[in-house]
Amino acid sequence: MSELSISWWRQLEEIIDRALDEDLCLGDATTEALIPPQLQGRASFLVKAEGVLAGMGVAAAVFRRLDPSLKVDAFMPDGARVKPGDVVGSVSGAVASILSVERTALNFLQRLSGIATQTALFVEAVAGTRARIVDTRKTAPGLRLLDKYAVRMGGGHNHRFNLGDGILIKDNHLAAMRRTGVGLGEAVRRARSRVRHSIKIQVEVTSPEQVLEAVEAGADAILLDNMSVDDMRRAVGLGGGRALLEASGGINLQTVRAAAETGVDLISAGSLTHSVKALDISLELEV
Amino acid sequence: MSELSISWWRQLEEIIDRALDEDLCLGDATTEALIPPQLQGRASFLVKAEGVLAGMGVAAAVFRRLDPSLKVDAFMPDGARVKPGDVVGSVSGAVASILSVERTALNFLQRLSGIATQTALFVEAVAGTRARIVDTRKTAPGLRLLDKYAVRMGGGHNHRFNLGDGILIKDNHLAAMRRTGVGLGEAVRRARSRVRHSIKIQVEVTSPEQVLEAVEAGADAILLDNMSVDDMRRAVGLGGGRALLEASGGINLQTVRAAAETGVDLISAGSLTHSVKALDISLELEV
Amino acid sequence: MSELSISWWRQLEEIIDRALDEDLCLGDATTEALIPPQLQGRASFLVKAEGVLAGMGVAAAVFRRLDPSLKVDAFMPDGARVKPGDVVGSVSGAVASILSVERTALNFLQRLSGIATQTALFVEAVAGTRARIVDTRKTAPGLRLLDKYAVRMGGGHNHRFNLGDGILIKDNHLAAMRRTGVGLGEAVRRARSRVRHSIKIQVEVTSPEQVLEAVEAGADAILLDNMSVDDMRRAVGLGGGRALLEASGGINLQTVRAAAETGVDLISAGSLTHSVKALDISLELEV
Amino acid sequence: MSELSISWWRQLEEIIDRALDEDLCLGDATTEALIPPQLQGRASFLVKAEGVLAGMGVAAAVFRRLDPSLKVDAFMPDGARVKPGDVVGSVSGAVASILSVERTALNFLQRLSGIATQTALFVEAVAGTRARIVDTRKTAPGLRLLDKYAVRMGGGHNHRFNLGDGILIKDNHLAAMRRTGVGLGEAVRRARSRVRHSIKIQVEVTSPEQVLEAVEAGADAILLDNMSVDDMRRAVGLGGGRALLEASGGINLQTVRAAAETGVDLISAGSLTHSVKALDISLELEV
Amino acid sequence: MSELSISWWRQLEEIIDRALDEDLCLGDATTEALIPPQLQGRASFLVKAEGVLAGMGVAAAVFRRLDPSLKVDAFMPDGARVKPGDVVGSVSGAVASILSVERTALNFLQRLSGIATQTALFVEAVAGTRARIVDTRKTAPGLRLLDKYAVRMGGGHNHRFNLGDGILIKDNHLAAMRRTGVGLGEAVRRARSRVRHSIKIQVEVTSPEQVLEAVEAGADAILLDNMSVDDMRRAVGLGGGRALLEASGGINLQTVRAAAETGVDLISAGSLTHSVKALDISLELEV
Amino acid sequence: MSELSISWWRQLEEIIDRALDEDLCLGDATTEALIPPQLQGRASFLVKAEGVLAGMGVAAAVFRRLDPSLKVDAFMPDGARVKPGDVVGSVSGAVASILSVERTALNFLQRLSGIATQTALFVEAVAGTRARIVDTRKTAPGLRLLDKYAVRMGGGHNHRFNLGDGILIKDNHLAAMRRTGVGLGEAVRRARSRVRHSIKIQVEVTSPEQVLEAVEAGADAILLDNMSVDDMRRAVGLGGGRALLEASGGINLQTVRAAAETGVDLISAGSLTHSVKALDISLELEV
Repeated sequence: MSELSISWWRQLEEIIDRALDEDLCLGDATTEALIPPQLQGRASFLVKAEGVLAGMGVAAAVFRRLDPSLKVDAFMPDGARVKPGDVVGSVSGAVASILSVERTALNFLQRLSGIATQTALFVEAVAGTRARIVDTRKTAPGLRLLDKYAVRMGGGHNHRFNLGDGILIKDNHLAAMRRTGVGLGEAVRRARSRVRHSIKIQVEVTSPEQVLEAVEAGADAILLDNMSVDDMRRAVGLGGGRALLEASGGINLQTVRAAAETGVDLISAGSLTHSVKALDISLELEV
Repeated sequence: MSELSISWWRQLEEIIDRALDEDLCLGDATTEALIPPQLQGRASFLVKAEGVLAGMGVAAAVFRRLDPSLKVDAFMPDGARVKPGDVVGSVSGAVASILSVERTALNFLQRLSGIATQTALFVEAVAGTRARIVDTRKTAPGLRLLDKYAVRMGGGHNHRFNLGDGILIKDNHLAAMRRTGVGLGEAVRRARSRVRHSIKIQVEVTSPEQVLEAVEAGADAILLDNMSVDDMRRAVGLGGGRALLEASGGINLQTVRAAAETGVDLISAGSLTHSVKALDISLELEV
Repeated sequence: MSELSISWWRQLEEIIDRALDEDLCLGDATTEALIPPQLQGRASFLVKAEGVLAGMGVAAAVFRRLDPSLKVDAFMPDGARVKPGDVVGSVSGAVASILSVERTALNFLQRLSGIATQTALFVEAVAGTRARIVDTRKTAPGLRLLDKYAVRMGGGHNHRFNLGDGILIKDNHLAAMRRTGVGLGEAVRRARSRVRHSIKIQVEVTSPEQVLEAVEAGADAILLDNMSVDDMRRAVGLGGGRALLEASGGINLQTVRAAAETGVDLISAGSLTHSVKALDISLELEV
Repeated sequence: MSELSISWWRQLEEIIDRALDEDLCLGDATTEALIPPQLQGRASFLVKAEGVLAGMGVAAAVFRRLDPSLKVDAFMPDGARVKPGDVVGSVSGAVASILSVERTALNFLQRLSGIATQTALFVEAVAGTRARIVDTRKTAPGLRLLDKYAVRMGGGHNHRFNLGDGILIKDNHLAAMRRTGVGLGEAVRRARSRVRHSIKIQVEVTSPEQVLEAVEAGADAILLDNMSVDDMRRAVGLGGGRALLEASGGINLQTVRAAAETGVDLISAGSLTHSVKALDISLELEV
Repeated sequence: MSELSISWWRQLEEIIDRALDEDLCLGDATTEALIPPQLQGRASFLVKAEGVLAGMGVAAAVFRRLDPSLKVDAFMPDGARVKPGDVVGSVSGAVASILSVERTALNFLQRLSGIATQTALFVEAVAGTRARIVDTRKTAPGLRLLDKYAVRMGGGHNHRFNLGDGILIKDNHLAAMRRTGVGLGEAVRRARSRVRHSIKIQVEVTSPEQVLEAVEAGADAILLDNMSVDDMRRAVGLGGGRALLEASGGINLQTVRAAAETGVDLISAGSLTHSVKALDISLELEV
Repeated sequence: MSELSISWWRQLEEIIDRALDEDLCLGDATTEALIPPQLQGRASFLVKAEGVLAGMGVAAAVFRRLDPSLKVDAFMPDGARVKPGDVVGSVSGAVASILSVERTALNFLQRLSGIATQTALFVEAVAGTRARIVDTRKTAPGLRLLDKYAVRMGGGHNHRFNLGDGILIKDNHLAAMRRTGVGLGEAVRRARSRVRHSIKIQVEVTSPEQVLEAVEAGADAILLDNMSVDDMRRAVGLGGGRALLEASGGINLQTVRAAAETGVDLISAGSLTHSVKALDISLELEV
């Protein structure tokens, strides 16, 4: 099920509307002045770099949101590997409409494909280990839904969507609680007793020893913050199988394999979404 | 005037609201379960990499949008150069509020500072030439206002904000018009006669020779698309002083200096906003 | 922490705005025609039936949303037991403002107190057992946040807030999957592998035997649908301690104790929010 | 004309959108994980209690708002009497869409049918008298349009929709005016001279004698607040035929007949909408 | 009570927000480039034509909506007669803010004062008669609330605010009903039996004879469409005192007195709001 | 290209929605009570005065926004000259829908045609000169997009759409800058260096001599404020051909020809949009 499900499209439409309004709030002065409304044409999405495609369905929706009479075809599904020269889709209909939406559609497609591409590199790097690559909440403001979708298209998994659909007791929470005399284990127990039963309790630890404390307090998952590979391995030895273990903090393409080989269940990387390199894709009008 | 003027804040508030809603639509389960509402504290913005700061005012607004009783101080203005270890601001008040907003505020601050940092590198690279570094419309959907603000903080200038506040006749427009027998010069003349007098006419050319045609048709500015340095120099010789000349297409930090030395007025780079590397800044809760 | 946390107030403001707009979209013709704007006064919230209070903070917010100069005092906290004759709060300021908001504020307060009152009866009925009383998604459209808040004020706990913050594989899901040859255990396993690690997997079963299948497939929680007390007891024997067990379906004040004594962890009742009896509270203007 | 007219649907769409967003803001995790998007099916609305149907058109709109390709058929019109076992409609199309909307659609249908059912009991109780059963503004915040529609489907009539489309001078208005030396009659006269001519003037009285004062001041309608049956009868003798008389305050199914037999024109009951018992209707997926 | 009551301000804020967004969606490029943010100043509202003031409170709200630190003083209340040279108010604070809002604030003030001025001429023309001058629904789209407020400030009264707060059976309704065999009297009776009791029934007639039919069917008010003065007089003779009579259709300042002297209760004129001449008021910055 | 382009329709839909909500927020009580929903019919747009048509496409969109099943035909394009008796379009479908939208649609059509009609008179008055008639920002709040569209339909041209898509340094800006010691020429130079290169710099002058100063500072356009015809002629002599010259201030149909004959490029008139006389057009239901 590689595409956004129907229940997500309501949110997506709002994101698309904002993007179109941002670019077209004063109309498209150039196109209005020069392009006859009745002129029909066709344009192709041309890939110019290697990567993983994500956002063709979104790009199609952007075109059709402005002009429902446009016809958009995707030749490759989201999640597909692409290389320079690939034509991954086309849009046909009123040339004026195509030109007015081109930039907005590409802005989505290039960003999402960039995220999927980078995620796929992480996923490949850990191939054969038990580790899932997961994202963070370090997404572009207003685009979390899509940024996280692109991570899935690159083969990654999602972490929490927001502050309400999971418990993650972080260092700053623990620091604040220590001031009131509450330690890690007690924090986990309080969370367990107070939050709804449908969500899991995760807690951040900085040493392998804390893993035991967390597990015994009933944590469902544990975030190993900025640990050395050795410490991760010890943490796995102490808590593996009793709670999900997530390696986090400064992990990059060079270090991710070693982390994965420690036996952690999850590896999260903020850079997947906060430092995105757009995948080069252009729209070529056929003449 | 380094900060966003008051007339932009209405747009900014909407952007902030969306970001907060995205993260807090189901509340902050962890903080609600664990942090006493009355607990007061203070946190510092700590820079961990070299760069140019942008977005402190925005981050402050994010905190205060959720909880107006928070006090946010910026110790350095947007546009300032920062280095690892710099504490650029602080927020104090209810710890629960600080923790609920932390991630959202940092997502803005890190992205904007990343843009400003990259822009500043381009600006430095062309120091002493007449060239202005300008951005494009290749911004993150929904964040154009802020992405372009960050470019200014890095010493760059803005190009069009949207498709309605400037005329830019691009290759795809010209291709479409050719099918109806209209050439570059006629396109410029038509735009001139049809659009309101308050905005300028810019046209994209691919050869130095077209610069002359564009100038004679009355273009106010000309985009030199993917030209070699030699061609840029010839274009400057033909059109310089009669229209603004903008170098565009695949220009990076390695090539920007040579482009600037041809005498062009403007150099645009999509990567300033479409391929952003977040600047590493964290929030440290004091205990 | 009996009140809505600050991160929920953004959602609450929208709910309040809609309610005020619904009643005041054409102004308040009576008050505008008759009450001098400068007339000051005070009104008291008078309880006329026994119950549990919920919504004083919301009612206060409603008044202050229309007229921030109104002063609202709550004399009793949400969650407090009240009886006829109790004065639980007051509002003072412009009489015109008080009269224009009175009905809207009471509509919130009476509904929420009604929910809390009914919930408290269920909670008392199971006192001494391990069972938590939990709500459902059978809330008034648009008011889920508040309906669920009122359940907490009555001593109950919340179940999922929406279809995205927990997995509950219900009879209709299982029926649909059976058509593709997938059984209960496989359904649980698929959910586990596909959803983010931060949320739990719950599955609905109709016989004690299925409890074992669910537990073995790795379900975190199991909903016992419309089981007899005997079957619930067997289910607890088979799955208790290995997964959370929730009794559900047609449980009322008469039957809830027996269900709780079987040892289930959770008992859910849709009637808490879909069949609410408003608690009688009025606003008395002092003259 | 039993259904909501086209001019109301704009408001209804907003209500539906809020309800869908409330439940689907994070998608439908269970359905996305388990139900193949292409799986087609059919589900029936099954009534499980006696009552009056209301909201089938609304429920249909909810399904089609998420997925316009769903086909929804109503087998019985709103306002029809239903009994356990009745199948009142069906929905067919993508099973995933049906399951994602099921709860939201039923929340509307059950509440509205509950209101219609209760209203019908009041209407039957006064059969043969001149009294109309009318609702109040004691509706669930945000749902007034629909709550009042359901009252009509149960055979009742609507009172004011909001504070701007009718004048009702209540006890609190009169109390406030007395402090400035203005009595009931003068209040009516002031309202008459100040408000637009298209709306009627109604005033609340507590004794039969005030009915005369109100009529003489030109009141179009009079609310008899919490009067005994004897007082109502005297009120009818004094003011009947000269103004519409409305009995109000604590009237229930036991007392409504006696009130109606006094000859009043209208009887209002807040409980119709503030204390709703959902009508039990379920959606059965066919397999 | 000459100002907009507090219950209308919610609607007004939306109108103001739209107007500000319309002018400031891309910021104020001139002011941002040239005016130092810290520069303080003061500007005066200078009247340049004779008329009636309306909208000072609105203009003040516009200024303060952009910049709450601006201080706005009204020297004359809405409804006051003004003449060239009158200074009716001032605004002081940041010059940049004043300049960014100036045009938007004046657009409101000039339009509303124009409406009030024209209305006052009609009101004066009928002085001494029983006729009220009333407006219509022929207002500028989106500005009805304010257009109707201005009519009141000019001494006029309001007709219906929208299609839901009063019944007006117009020629087109009657024409449509005739096709189904329903006449004027029956139309009135149907309306009476079907609509809520809080609103009045008005019907349009084209001959004095129909007045009798309408009165006998129970119409509360009657619109005399495009009648000659003689026919109006006959209509008053037939229906005066039994229903409100409203003269309507092509009545202007030259003809309004004669219409009023026939004894009608109301005279409506669409031109009050559909053909507005802005009152000349400027903002003078003091230097 | 006489109609609103597709990129403007997003804005237009919002304007239409507001207008429909304004009139139909409580439904259409008269139509709902009296007109059978299934009754079909047809109505014609009948012109009753001489003028220029504008807004037929908008009116059609209004009808179809409420009821997409309505069929609307325009017999004449926007911009066409019309005279009494012309039938310019028709709408057919459900009579109830037609009657519910009639007034809202006409409010748009009458205003826009009024603006186009008045603009055309100015345009004719300057026929044969080089002067373009341009509008101002003195539009009805919330309707700028449409007001300016109507100006184009009348043969006029648009000035700035808002404060962000052009630079116009006005008297108040210059006055403020003088206080900080900055003169006209320096103001122009500062604007040039600070604003994006895609928009032009215009400055307001009050004497012919300042025209030279402005031109030398690099102004692209100059607004001649309230100049006598002699001064305009001198201004043209000094600055014509080097910058666009715009006559502005109190120019009416009597004086516009003389202004145009001085050789100015542009003549602006606020009255085109701030003092509109609706063109009389009605909707006649066929029976």
